[in-house]
Amino acid sequence: MGSTFGQLFQISTWGESHGGGVGVVVDGCPPRVPLTEADIQIDLDRRRPGQSEITTPRNEADQAEILSGTFESLTLGSPIAILVRNKDHRPEAYSEMRDKFRPSHADYTYQAKYGIRNWQGGGRSSARETIGRVAAAAIAKKVIAACFAPDLEILPFVESIGTIRARIDPATVTRESIESNIVRTGDPDAVEPMIDLIKQVRSEGNSVGGVVGCLIRNVPVGLGMPVFDRLEADLAKAMLSLPATKGFEIGSGFAGTEMTGREHNDSFRMEDGRVRTTSNRSGGVQGGISNGEDILFRVAFKPTATIMTAQDTVSTDYHDTELKGRGRHDACVLPRAVPMVEAMAALVLVDHMLRQRALCGNDGAETGHGEKGGNAAR
Amino acid sequence: MGSTFGQLFQISTWGESHGGGVGVVVDGCPPRVPLTEADIQIDLDRRRPGQSEITTPRNEADQAEILSGTFESLTLGSPIAILVRNKDHRPEAYSEMRDKFRPSHADYTYQAKYGIRNWQGGGRSSARETIGRVAAAAIAKKVIAACFAPDLEILPFVESIGTIRARIDPATVTRESIESNIVRTGDPDAVEPMIDLIKQVRSEGNSVGGVVGCLIRNVPVGLGMPVFDRLEADLAKAMLSLPATKGFEIGSGFAGTEMTGREHNDSFRMEDGRVRTTSNRSGGVQGGISNGEDILFRVAFKPTATIMTAQDTVSTDYHDTELKGRGRHDACVLPRAVPMVEAMAALVLVDHMLRQRALCGNDGAETGHGEKGGNAAR
Amino acid sequence: MGSTFGQLFQISTWGESHGGGVGVVVDGCPPRVPLTEADIQIDLDRRRPGQSEITTPRNEADQAEILSGTFESLTLGSPIAILVRNKDHRPEAYSEMRDKFRPSHADYTYQAKYGIRNWQGGGRSSARETIGRVAAAAIAKKVIAACFAPDLEILPFVESIGTIRARIDPATVTRESIESNIVRTGDPDAVEPMIDLIKQVRSEGNSVGGVVGCLIRNVPVGLGMPVFDRLEADLAKAMLSLPATKGFEIGSGFAGTEMTGREHNDSFRMEDGRVRTTSNRSGGVQGGISNGEDILFRVAFKPTATIMTAQDTVSTDYHDTELKGRGRHDACVLPRAVPMVEAMAALVLVDHMLRQRALCGNDGAETGHGEKGGNAAR
Amino acid sequence: MGSTFGQLFQISTWGESHGGGVGVVVDGCPPRVPLTEADIQIDLDRRRPGQSEITTPRNEADQAEILSGTFESLTLGSPIAILVRNKDHRPEAYSEMRDKFRPSHADYTYQAKYGIRNWQGGGRSSARETIGRVAAAAIAKKVIAACFAPDLEILPFVESIGTIRARIDPATVTRESIESNIVRTGDPDAVEPMIDLIKQVRSEGNSVGGVVGCLIRNVPVGLGMPVFDRLEADLAKAMLSLPATKGFEIGSGFAGTEMTGREHNDSFRMEDGRVRTTSNRSGGVQGGISNGEDILFRVAFKPTATIMTAQDTVSTDYHDTELKGRGRHDACVLPRAVPMVEAMAALVLVDHMLRQRALCGNDGAETGHGEKGGNAAR
Repeated sequence: MGSTFGQLFQISTWGESHGGGVGVVVDGCPPRVPLTEADIQIDLDRRRPGQSEITTPRNEADQAEILSGTFESLTLGSPIAILVRNKDHRPEAYSEMRDKFRPSHADYTYQAKYGIRNWQGGGRSSARETIGRVAAAAIAKKVIAACFAPDLEILPFVESIGTIRARIDPATVTRESIESNIVRTGDPDAVEPMIDLIKQVRSEGNSVGGVVGCLIRNVPVGLGMPVFDRLEADLAKAMLSLPATKGFEIGSGFAGTEMTGREHNDSFRMEDGRVRTTSNRSGGVQGGISNGEDILFRVAFKPTATIMTAQDTVSTDYHDTELKGRGRHDACVLPRAVPMVEAMAALVLVDHMLRQRALCGNDGAETGHGEKGGNAAR
Repeated sequence: MGSTFGQLFQISTWGESHGGGVGVVVDGCPPRVPLTEADIQIDLDRRRPGQSEITTPRNEADQAEILSGTFESLTLGSPIAILVRNKDHRPEAYSEMRDKFRPSHADYTYQAKYGIRNWQGGGRSSARETIGRVAAAAIAKKVIAACFAPDLEILPFVESIGTIRARIDPATVTRESIESNIVRTGDPDAVEPMIDLIKQVRSEGNSVGGVVGCLIRNVPVGLGMPVFDRLEADLAKAMLSLPATKGFEIGSGFAGTEMTGREHNDSFRMEDGRVRTTSNRSGGVQGGISNGEDILFRVAFKPTATIMTAQDTVSTDYHDTELKGRGRHDACVLPRAVPMVEAMAALVLVDHMLRQRALCGNDGAETGHGEKGGNAAR
Repeated sequence: MGSTFGQLFQISTWGESHGGGVGVVVDGCPPRVPLTEADIQIDLDRRRPGQSEITTPRNEADQAEILSGTFESLTLGSPIAILVRNKDHRPEAYSEMRDKFRPSHADYTYQAKYGIRNWQGGGRSSARETIGRVAAAAIAKKVIAACFAPDLEILPFVESIGTIRARIDPATVTRESIESNIVRTGDPDAVEPMIDLIKQVRSEGNSVGGVVGCLIRNVPVGLGMPVFDRLEADLAKAMLSLPATKGFEIGSGFAGTEMTGREHNDSFRMEDGRVRTTSNRSGGVQGGISNGEDILFRVAFKPTATIMTAQDTVSTDYHDTELKGRGRHDACVLPRAVPMVEAMAALVLVDHMLRQRALCGNDGAETGHGEKGGNAAR
Repeated sequence: MGSTFGQLFQISTWGESHGGGVGVVVDGCPPRVPLTEADIQIDLDRRRPGQSEITTPRNEADQAEILSGTFESLTLGSPIAILVRNKDHRPEAYSEMRDKFRPSHADYTYQAKYGIRNWQGGGRSSARETIGRVAAAAIAKKVIAACFAPDLEILPFVESIGTIRARIDPATVTRESIESNIVRTGDPDAVEPMIDLIKQVRSEGNSVGGVVGCLIRNVPVGLGMPVFDRLEADLAKAMLSLPATKGFEIGSGFAGTEMTGREHNDSFRMEDGRVRTTSNRSGGVQGGISNGEDILFRVAFKPTATIMTAQDTVSTDYHDTELKGRGRHDACVLPRAVPMVEAMAALVLVDHMLRQRALCGNDGAETGHGEKGGNAAR
């Protein structure tokens, strides 16, 4: 209840930042999908701290062990359990957190909700929890490729850091251009200014926020379950479940609210025998269901709450006091948020693919090619 | 699967815009809560078309009948079924929709997904489906008041229409000031310009979008279930499940991404024996859990897709064609979106209240008053 | 929470015996399945009271109305809501129930749990609630036939009433032989003794229990989701959720506990290119998964609690008192339990068929024919 | 999907008999409940093989490690992950299973369903999977004691092995008398005959089944969620989800079907200010809800499928062949089934306690004491 995500490809993450480790159980993975620990490690390495000069210097290898659910490098259809041991324990670095609530962190609300919290690091609210998500999503991506949409690409990128905005052309951006730089933006001109900004705020003991954009190409038509599990609704929930997120918009988003219907509507045209739209203000989703165009959404990340300046706060025995951040933290989470956004997008997509297969069978959707959507058996 | 919302206060809406009716079943409502049909009718009347000169002239009474789950005006603890008959059938008004997909509507994606659709009106994708949500939320609000938080107020309001923005002071805005005008904005100075804009776009056969803001006061500390069912994640999903929504942000939202941590963090201070924050960029939620401050979020609504101009589209036998909107539609959904946003917020809150009671008992949260959160029985 | 059944073919029943009506919402029905009200009415007529001289003389037509989810006699893929109005209100017949708890009924436990109950008839605990299940199962059977297993037969029958046992040969029993008599047993020799017994206990103001057996033929191999949602586990839950049930056994059941493994094991043999078992003590399920043999299970129904003799009980203000049954009740529920058992079996099967299609695709199972189970896309 | 159990106290077990290990994640455990690894180890030791001369000589220590969810020996309210490493790997003992399906085992159905199976031992269908259940239930029992019902006792016992039946008096049987002997029956006179029977069938390379009875004392009134999640329905599912089970009955069970209502009904009487029944044919549950009397149910276990005699079977390339059991197996699972039945009962109870607290608050039920059931806040 709370740590479980997905209806059919159901993941349960577990683990605190300090304790035996973190991990995930995936219940509902289709059988006979190729899977090894190396498939998972690739994405964990993109998420881990200490990977570049602009991320936290904590250096955690985050080595994944598959404990169950595979046999001879194929999934069995049974639950896949993945374990990553915690290594970099320095509880002493956190002793002040035992006695004071860090501003704009989860310390106070966890204490108020549960009457207890693991104050050694962020505990359950640590971004370390996302290891389980990223590991599960590595499996999800294998399933998508093996069973549903081999050409599907999930391409998240850093769109802005503070007020510095990248210019990304959704039509041409590539994973290579995004992953080629340590900020993970697809705009070569933005790389250096963004790195400079992160270094500057870090040197000031400060932090900065930003926006991750995400493009998904070659999405099958027909994903999404009206009325509540609309594709954009599940994407919004997935993204807002990531630490430090404050907003989500798809397609035209907030800017679209200033347009008229005449400006905003996406016309339909036939193109190579397929139904296409001539613009994409819908962001690839109409009526809660993917229409085959690129999915495009944006996620707002607030500045890291840990800063190296004294701040007003209250103690755990409820008196006013002051706290100055310590420890090794990202001054900007955006570069490491990219694989997290990718993970949550993959988890939403695979779940909807399985749900669509359950409801409507394997025929694929009616897209103008003459294939029929709906039920496989008719 | 798709039409069910909530973990404990679980609602299942049903119904197409044309057919026997629309409604909802609420499974999981606590017993002995006072409830009559009048409680539900109040909110349905705020949602219904034809209520003012700026909404669609369709005039549907939307009379609610409680079919089960109450006895002598109290809830029984068994499922509450509510039925609203469809009245204003004019299938002939929709005959062109049988043969053509309306741009930026759900016609094409429904056809592609299911291989079939009810083309008489929007079918399941019609905003008429939200009747079930609003009815269920009327019950949710009774439960919140009777069992959990008598003082809690959910105050959604129209924040902008097109480029016209209202100025709302969260500290002082009242339900009366919002509901006193037909646009449902809390800023008296914005009322007339907003009405004028809606009338103007309507006269041009056009439409316009906008933003609904939502303020929730007197929220108990401790609501939200990390890590996936964070309160803001469930709110985001709830809002993005409403028709025509394109974005959600909470607290500082997208604007906060341009701030540094030093500017953005909310300091804690003791006030009247309670832990308070001196600013509220968090929007009332920290670490996925309510902190007792006002919850503040914003929802983006795109311009209505139905416009009275000829648009390019494709036919249901997949040829390029043209379509001109017909029928009676809202040129701007914002005023009627206000009770829908309110409904979804109430449904999220009541569900998390029940979940918190299940997990941690009734003691209430540790808020600095000396009460303890966590488990009731210790 | 409590009134919802199924993971993918998810039904929510609602309604009390006295009130606006009873019904069901089916969320998760595949699209494009042929469905009319007549399909549902057939099974409701088999379930309804007053259908023969040995059932309760209450005469309720139980007319089903489909309120949503179909279009031109095909399912839409959206929720299907079904309403059956209550007709035979005679609250005065129940006034004594307001003040006294009926022995071995749900009156006391409902009052204790909820602090309130609808004392006019059985309220939510009435067998009238099963109308929603039977209606939903009529849809389930259409889905099974249209999408998964056209030849599948669910054949429940009365196996015993009191100490009178029918002799049924699973290999040859037919729906015609079962439905040709008002007791619904497949053994012609048992019909008259059973009818006589029911009439006799009724004339004495008494009641009698019995066992329903259920045979399911032509079951696809591969249904069931280890480890918790084993097919027999879901069948057991489904059956024990019916009113008046006290036991469930599959295959060899309790009798099998007295056997040795050598006697009990079902050998495998190839037959017409398919894997078959030479005996069927497993009852068609091995390791929680159907093996293609006939599924065979039995359900115990206790004698009807309402009897026309004075019994010791307590009043609703908690004093010892006495109560004599009144009203019109079945002296034996077995004949009407047959369609209820059929309904629950159909609901379990369709849900597992959808789940199997989600997990493993449409290829069908590996049964010795050379087809492969597992994932469709490999 | 399949390996997850419970609505609020939700457990996900994972693991094959051969592989990295087995374990469980518990999502939904209340915070601040005392918990250490020793609490879990006690029950794992009762379940483990090699514990006595009549269980399999496999000697697995089954050492539990708590990986997350506790802090300073209290639960945190976050997911609790438990890992037990596999130790006794002897894949060579199983090589024949690669090529042949063992009769009355899950080999064939797993292969048919998933298109793949881990043939080294039982894989996912191994009773080793129940380690996760027993570990989770150890936590459940701590929660029941700490938060809900300190006096509640779950007392399962071996009621019969083959045709040897124990005589147990539910009023007086104690955990001590049950656990004092290696068969785990509460009847001292049955111990020796049962042990002799097990040794005899084992010496013959054969196996034998039996029945586990389960008594639950001091159950709160009001547990169970009509109509589908009736307490007996959830117990039935829980028990039938255990390996080798073939039947479940509660209270009068199948024997009660031969009684008349007059014989069968449980009269109510006031006793010490509480509503009691003068007999208990209901088995402690009426209308799907606990009535405060002892819960009494029985579970049928078939004889172990592995026997040391040649049996007809088919090969994995679908030809008739022969197989003789090998390896070290229990000739009778009953003694080790006792803690498994206890575990599943505890998991059902704790889930319904949390659900009841969610729905009706903490007031406790109306039992004649004058306390009120229903909603806490009125």
